[in-house]
Amino acid sequence: MFGAVFAHGPVAGAVGDGAWLEAMLEVEAALARALAGARLVPAETAAAITEAARVAPIDVETLSRAAARTGNPVVALVEALSAAVPKDARPAVHRGATSQDVIDTAMMLLAKRAGALLLEDLAAGADAAATLASRHRATLIAGRTLLQQALPMTFGLKAAGWLHALDAARGRLRDVLERGLYVQFGGATGTLAALQDRGVEVGELLARELGLAMPVMPWHTHRLPVLEIAGAVAGAGLVLGKIARDVTLLAQSEVGEVREAPGEQKGVSSTMPHKRNPVAAVAMLGCTRRVPGLLATLAAAGEQEHERAAGGWHVEWETFSDLLRLTGSAASWGRELLAGLEVNGERMRHNLQQAGAAVVAENLTALLAPTMGRVPALDLVRRAVALAEQSNAPLLTVLLETPSTATALATAKLDAGAVARALEPKQYLGSTDAWIDRTLAAHAAQAMAEGAHP
Amino acid sequence: MFGAVFAHGPVAGAVGDGAWLEAMLEVEAALARALAGARLVPAETAAAITEAARVAPIDVETLSRAAARTGNPVVALVEALSAAVPKDARPAVHRGATSQDVIDTAMMLLAKRAGALLLEDLAAGADAAATLASRHRATLIAGRTLLQQALPMTFGLKAAGWLHALDAARGRLRDVLERGLYVQFGGATGTLAALQDRGVEVGELLARELGLAMPVMPWHTHRLPVLEIAGAVAGAGLVLGKIARDVTLLAQSEVGEVREAPGEQKGVSSTMPHKRNPVAAVAMLGCTRRVPGLLATLAAAGEQEHERAAGGWHVEWETFSDLLRLTGSAASWGRELLAGLEVNGERMRHNLQQAGAAVVAENLTALLAPTMGRVPALDLVRRAVALAEQSNAPLLTVLLETPSTATALATAKLDAGAVARALEPKQYLGSTDAWIDRTLAAHAAQAMAEGAHP
Amino acid sequence: MFGAVFAHGPVAGAVGDGAWLEAMLEVEAALARALAGARLVPAETAAAITEAARVAPIDVETLSRAAARTGNPVVALVEALSAAVPKDARPAVHRGATSQDVIDTAMMLLAKRAGALLLEDLAAGADAAATLASRHRATLIAGRTLLQQALPMTFGLKAAGWLHALDAARGRLRDVLERGLYVQFGGATGTLAALQDRGVEVGELLARELGLAMPVMPWHTHRLPVLEIAGAVAGAGLVLGKIARDVTLLAQSEVGEVREAPGEQKGVSSTMPHKRNPVAAVAMLGCTRRVPGLLATLAAAGEQEHERAAGGWHVEWETFSDLLRLTGSAASWGRELLAGLEVNGERMRHNLQQAGAAVVAENLTALLAPTMGRVPALDLVRRAVALAEQSNAPLLTVLLETPSTATALATAKLDAGAVARALEPKQYLGSTDAWIDRTLAAHAAQAMAEGAHP
Amino acid sequence: MFGAVFAHGPVAGAVGDGAWLEAMLEVEAALARALAGARLVPAETAAAITEAARVAPIDVETLSRAAARTGNPVVALVEALSAAVPKDARPAVHRGATSQDVIDTAMMLLAKRAGALLLEDLAAGADAAATLASRHRATLIAGRTLLQQALPMTFGLKAAGWLHALDAARGRLRDVLERGLYVQFGGATGTLAALQDRGVEVGELLARELGLAMPVMPWHTHRLPVLEIAGAVAGAGLVLGKIARDVTLLAQSEVGEVREAPGEQKGVSSTMPHKRNPVAAVAMLGCTRRVPGLLATLAAAGEQEHERAAGGWHVEWETFSDLLRLTGSAASWGRELLAGLEVNGERMRHNLQQAGAAVVAENLTALLAPTMGRVPALDLVRRAVALAEQSNAPLLTVLLETPSTATALATAKLDAGAVARALEPKQYLGSTDAWIDRTLAAHAAQAMAEGAHP
Repeated sequence: MFGAVFAHGPVAGAVGDGAWLEAMLEVEAALARALAGARLVPAETAAAITEAARVAPIDVETLSRAAARTGNPVVALVEALSAAVPKDARPAVHRGATSQDVIDTAMMLLAKRAGALLLEDLAAGADAAATLASRHRATLIAGRTLLQQALPMTFGLKAAGWLHALDAARGRLRDVLERGLYVQFGGATGTLAALQDRGVEVGELLARELGLAMPVMPWHTHRLPVLEIAGAVAGAGLVLGKIARDVTLLAQSEVGEVREAPGEQKGVSSTMPHKRNPVAAVAMLGCTRRVPGLLATLAAAGEQEHERAAGGWHVEWETFSDLLRLTGSAASWGRELLAGLEVNGERMRHNLQQAGAAVVAENLTALLAPTMGRVPALDLVRRAVALAEQSNAPLLTVLLETPSTATALATAKLDAGAVARALEPKQYLGSTDAWIDRTLAAHAAQAMAEGAHP
Repeated sequence: MFGAVFAHGPVAGAVGDGAWLEAMLEVEAALARALAGARLVPAETAAAITEAARVAPIDVETLSRAAARTGNPVVALVEALSAAVPKDARPAVHRGATSQDVIDTAMMLLAKRAGALLLEDLAAGADAAATLASRHRATLIAGRTLLQQALPMTFGLKAAGWLHALDAARGRLRDVLERGLYVQFGGATGTLAALQDRGVEVGELLARELGLAMPVMPWHTHRLPVLEIAGAVAGAGLVLGKIARDVTLLAQSEVGEVREAPGEQKGVSSTMPHKRNPVAAVAMLGCTRRVPGLLATLAAAGEQEHERAAGGWHVEWETFSDLLRLTGSAASWGRELLAGLEVNGERMRHNLQQAGAAVVAENLTALLAPTMGRVPALDLVRRAVALAEQSNAPLLTVLLETPSTATALATAKLDAGAVARALEPKQYLGSTDAWIDRTLAAHAAQAMAEGAHP
Repeated sequence: MFGAVFAHGPVAGAVGDGAWLEAMLEVEAALARALAGARLVPAETAAAITEAARVAPIDVETLSRAAARTGNPVVALVEALSAAVPKDARPAVHRGATSQDVIDTAMMLLAKRAGALLLEDLAAGADAAATLASRHRATLIAGRTLLQQALPMTFGLKAAGWLHALDAARGRLRDVLERGLYVQFGGATGTLAALQDRGVEVGELLARELGLAMPVMPWHTHRLPVLEIAGAVAGAGLVLGKIARDVTLLAQSEVGEVREAPGEQKGVSSTMPHKRNPVAAVAMLGCTRRVPGLLATLAAAGEQEHERAAGGWHVEWETFSDLLRLTGSAASWGRELLAGLEVNGERMRHNLQQAGAAVVAENLTALLAPTMGRVPALDLVRRAVALAEQSNAPLLTVLLETPSTATALATAKLDAGAVARALEPKQYLGSTDAWIDRTLAAHAAQAMAEGAHP
Repeated sequence: MFGAVFAHGPVAGAVGDGAWLEAMLEVEAALARALAGARLVPAETAAAITEAARVAPIDVETLSRAAARTGNPVVALVEALSAAVPKDARPAVHRGATSQDVIDTAMMLLAKRAGALLLEDLAAGADAAATLASRHRATLIAGRTLLQQALPMTFGLKAAGWLHALDAARGRLRDVLERGLYVQFGGATGTLAALQDRGVEVGELLARELGLAMPVMPWHTHRLPVLEIAGAVAGAGLVLGKIARDVTLLAQSEVGEVREAPGEQKGVSSTMPHKRNPVAAVAMLGCTRRVPGLLATLAAAGEQEHERAAGGWHVEWETFSDLLRLTGSAASWGRELLAGLEVNGERMRHNLQQAGAAVVAENLTALLAPTMGRVPALDLVRRAVALAEQSNAPLLTVLLETPSTATALATAKLDAGAVARALEPKQYLGSTDAWIDRTLAAHAAQAMAEGAHP
């Protein structure tokens, strides 16, 4: 019903029931090949199992029903797969493994594929943010703290902030996906007893088959790997949520500085003909705000008993999928949002002017501080701002005509021209350009590094 | 894939896509009848809309896709429903309402139905716990604190604890379902402007049509009702989780005091032929441990902006359904678990004896305290227990033969018989029977009250 | 360091270390009197213990250090209290109780006192909101959905929404405080074995001494009562967070519709002389956004093993205090904020006019729907609004001069005057007044009921 | 009151009020030196500010009260520090910085110091686990899945699992501490406007002064760094919780396989003289179970508005400290627990024998599978196990004497000796030794790497 909001883009499909089933079958097939690699089963057996895993008519519904008896769907999966292979290959099916090996390793395969799709959408979003940062490098906008106009900055710097955050989230996620996806292979209690002294070797072959890392030892009830993936995904969620929050605020009727790209019926209301809602940003928040709860659930589930948890493990299955689905959905919405964002530079300048010279009053304080002290200067300017506001007079006039400020300005050797320049927003942008340059350069470097090791 | 674990029992079906669609259509139909009741539309129009809502071929998939443009599925639903009614009835469809009115009110209908099913499973579980409490009123078991044997109690008292907790959770949930399910009807910003001065009247008729309560004013961005339902459901989750945790602990191989009822292939392992796993209890924990994260998500989502939230509202849709589904699933598992629980009284007695007389050592302390002071008595007995443990001698012998304790016992006028009696578990059950009686009586009273107002 | 933000107002003091110590001593004293009431100890003994609990020089620091050995501070507390009473009274100290009885019951006393203080601040906040609702009943403001101007409403209705939410939160919290604070008294495993068959009687006397409710049976590992209190407190947090969120949005530089009351240095920036930050609203959000995590922690902690939890119980101590402290702090900030809120009706009207007649375009749709159908009407008006925006022309002009709309208006028999009236915000307020009346009446009724049972 | 439980060990002191104050003063002093390094203020001025920051009588209580007006304690801190420096140095105090720069950078200094202390306790715990893994390499114990005995393993392997998890958590935390602690320096809106074009240079000098990393751009409202630290700390919490959970289970009266080291009054009960509670493990769980809620709170707080968040930022202050304090406390408890753990190998063997040969029944299945198929073999053995249990006969006897199994064994060419060997736990340990070797080697390598870059 709500799939279009919460299962937007490609990730949802990579963590659904079908993806789980496919991944579990792939694990069973890869295990057969690993056993063959270790010469514990004939190569033809492995080939037969691999083929059966590809074509056997195994049904999600049936597995699910069976899981009600055994607590997980693997018993039924193994039975179904066994039934689909030649009789003499059957003993090789699932050999050495336990249900958890299959589910955990399948979960890592899901993370790998869903993670790669997520990275793609994040990268596209970052590229779009880079374009905004570059194009609006000099587009003045009010910087806002505690939702109050504070000091001038440029929209390019805001976009650079989004870009840098997206790049940081991408970097961490890529790192985890490249180094933190471990095969789980331990048998019932981690000893791989059924394979005598060949377990580690088979595990290493299995990892190679699946393109996963081999852990120092099995991690059946040591769930740091799950938390690390979840943390990296949640990091992307955090960044996407911040961007969406900024966009909803900038798109407010009274602010009007950005709008989402229009689309057929996009953002329309069921009753209000004049509305154009920030659908993508709202959908993003509808996704990202579920992330902290899912992350906490996975963190709490990590307290797992002995060699297989009674509940804590089971908690992970749907939660892990949901976390990827929702973050993936937010990333897809975010990519579209950033690529199509309409930026209204005129409105940004207008809003900044409305606040008046007050937003650069800090600058004056800095100019007055050397001669009169920082705190008294702050106080003096604060009173001038209040006076200008009450009397509806320009701050410059108030500063030059009020005796106390006039004296202070004179002491600081600041004439009217210097004060006027000090109150000019575009003169008060400090390191704005430098930050944008650094961020764009870092983005380019990251893109190049990814290209080298895609 | 994992539906058998997390969508066990009847509640899942009452919060799925189909249930949402049905409920939303029902709201639109009821609104038409309410408008007719207020004579704002003809009765035949209301009848036509009601009929169309029942039979129109409206597809979840289509609505979901449409929701990607408008942010929710109601715009498309209204279009589809309008297309299915006679042309002159169309202006009456959705009249006065906004998307949120339909979704929120539908969510309350879901809560009503899913909640009723949940209550049924909880009641069946409570009845089963009552039977256990009554039947095992005198079945000795070790009471355990911090997972250490502490003092004797009976399994009946433990079951009475489960019963009382289930009854408390049921009571709170029933209360919320009876008094806390409010119609949401406010139009875009709560004013019901489209209905001029008739909005409140139509709202009251709508509430009556749907069997929901009429709020003092619309609650579109005041989400206490959602949190209260969620809190009551989470309360049931908490209780079910506690029961499941106790059962997994009692069922441990080394404890062996209870077992889940056997079933075909129930609890079998994919590799270990000797195992009989506590499938229901584990599934319960796999459900209930996701509840706190969902509750937190709903609580955080309650900070909603102005007259419709940008994201916080959207968070609720799937989360609310998941919360009901998982708690409902746990309740269904719990009902089966409690009804079929195999209680091994012999093993309970055996485990209690293993710990020896030590578990009633507190009793001795109490008998010695009046003559020697509580703290010295505690100290003296603690040393005797340690000595008995080290020397592998019965505590009684140690007490009577160690000079310091012998003297203390003599001072307290306690002879060997009195000490032996003091060390007898069944003599040291205090208010066990009274608590069981009170709990069973309260359960009977609650059942009677529910019968009167089912 | 941050106490002024997070420990604002009276609640913090009622949940601090001193309050805990006092409450635990009170429980021990009340237990002595309950034992005396049941004639299990002499009245003078109870009096001596009560006096010692009042005056004994017991130090939080010492108890805390002792707790490192035993896992909780009660063992040391009992020793210290015993040392402070006459020798023959010592056996009566803590008689029948276990550490958990003392801590849990003390926690209920904290809830009672902190809860009462919290209710006071919430009530004061509600009164202030009622004043705003009444005073600004007709002050036009834009209703905003998804942070976009939607339809007109009045600030009084917005304040009525806050009021109603505060009243609902107060009602639930009061209910829990009045009926849901239970004495915990069960001894080590809930049997009260040390008191033979007198345990229930002593428990009832203890409850009466402390003004707490007597439970059906002990709740040592059945933590629904904790979750219910936490849920009610979190409900208040949710409401306060919503109000604070609205205020930060209304106070934005570009919106400027409300401001917090000024105070000496209130809301000033360390560098920006022109700023006046919404300190109270920001502090509220800094408190309320920690509530969901604390609620989840308590809900998860409720899965408690056997007769005393190994960790889950311990989780509650600081968490419960933090939850009350933060919500209490938010309530105190909220009370000040609402009492001093500066409402700028002129700015509200200005912002509404900026959006132009578009915000009442829904009204037009309703007038056109009967003759042309709801969906076509919505479409027609949507196009007119877009045209007006693009051409910077008044919507009224566009409507009357565009052939398609002119025809539609004629068909619906709407002349220029009727259309102009339809576009007038104050003509399109629907049930605004009725909702405000209902909310104020409900508030008055609640205040009266509270006065009757304060 | 509960400090001994939740503020155990050195970390608590490194995140308390005093540590915050010290760190904030250090930031102000380092900023002065950085300004001097950039020749924006004289070296003597920087020296005077540095000295004042060291000795000025600045009081936490006063700052806290002041924070009630301005929303954070930095305004008052700057005033107090300014008052303590020579008049001509005052304009240099806090120059270019905003409150958030000071608090965020101070928070990173806290993370650095508290993190280092946490790492020390984790390393000590890991060393103790390594000793256990090595010493008990061959100590047989039942591996347990879903709290049921499953297959034999050794206690050394269990300890190796703890070790590996601790090492993984340490590795990630060290990585974040070394590379992820960034200076925050952006001025009010990130532009560092007050420093004209010198901001980046001063930021770099500031980072160097404090031993923190220089970010690509300011992260005032981009909180991934906070989440990454929190995630790494929470990872340690997860691992500590798992260890504590295992210990509480192994220490159960009915299991009795480990005990915490005794200490004066350690683990005693206030009433039950025989108890020796697993105080450290319980305290650990009391800490670690609060971690997921804190992590979620920080993750949710990351959705920060524009250039300074209205609430989301404030949420972090106490939460971040609590997270470090609780994880640090758990690590200190864990270090003591692991160093003193009493391992009862005899009891482990006894418990394993109680379960009988059944725990190696999997082995039989593997031996029978090649000739009869895996699923039929599993079935056959399952029936034999059930029969042995019902008839209370040794599994070996049942296997040899039941016609169906006897035939199957014969077909598989397994004689009585081979079956007996197959049922011998120590013959069925698979890769146990290999895993322990790998884990110990990885631990040694990590320790060596840390020694090289301490």
